[in-house]
Amino acid sequence: MERVPILKIGAILLVSIQIDMEDQVALQLQEDLADRIVATGCHGVIIDISALDIVDSFVGRTLATIAGISKVLDADTVVVGMRPAVAITLVELGLSLPGIRTALNVELGMDLLARERFQDEDEDEDGPDNAETPVVPAP
Amino acid sequence: MERVPILKIGAILLVSIQIDMEDQVALQLQEDLADRIVATGCHGVIIDISALDIVDSFVGRTLATIAGISKVLDADTVVVGMRPAVAITLVELGLSLPGIRTALNVELGMDLLARERFQDEDEDEDGPDNAETPVVPAP
Repeated sequence: MERVPILKIGAILLVSIQIDMEDQVALQLQEDLADRIVATGCHGVIIDISALDIVDSFVGRTLATIAGISKVLDADTVVVGMRPAVAITLVELGLSLPGIRTALNVELGMDLLARERFQDEDEDEDGPDNAETPVVPAP
Repeated sequence: MERVPILKIGAILLVSIQIDMEDQVALQLQEDLADRIVATGCHGVIIDISALDIVDSFVGRTLATIAGISKVLDADTVVVGMRPAVAITLVELGLSLPGIRTALNVELGMDLLARERFQDEDEDEDGPDNAETPVVPAP
């Protein structure tokens, strides 16, 4: 079975989706990504979909599930590299990717994650829910 | 035709190879990569092959060609993420990937590129061959 590789860059995990998102591939990716977040303590996930010609409702749901899992594990997710034609088709189909943040490319996605993390840390400063999160040095 | 996406991260271009390296895909990747190096002035290329089960002589030659093209365009290439089984098979087949530098993962590849760049700049300080290279801020 094909497997989508997960690359670690600093405190961010980068996933470049290039193969068809069949059921098994999607499930495996969700599992692998959850494992890697826990193992590395990364606080951000960037999913590059610049290779995808089509984002259908299944891919949309997969991305939303990944974002949800990551969130529970204290990591933010940003989807980057969406082609203009994909964006047009998504909206025409009535799919708006709820709960998924996007950025134009990997670098802007990294900026977004760094900013969000900074804000989170400010807000959570005296909150108890931050007590058991993995310690990640601020970028 | 499928196309391998090229991601820009700082002064480095990252390529994650996940699809079969057929002739057309390989040629397209070489062309895209050369274009991106020139367009961005990046000084390093990292090629992740962690998704590949097999690296045969064609893939080996493609990687060597990419490294050669990048070198002419003043960019260093590092191949990262090779699986242990792939390394064993390569050596058994007598393929040693001449002219290709490797690192265990993307982060170590970035370190290697940064170090090499630093040395190059030291060596080329008063050499004339550096005159027309793109100006890239030191990391």
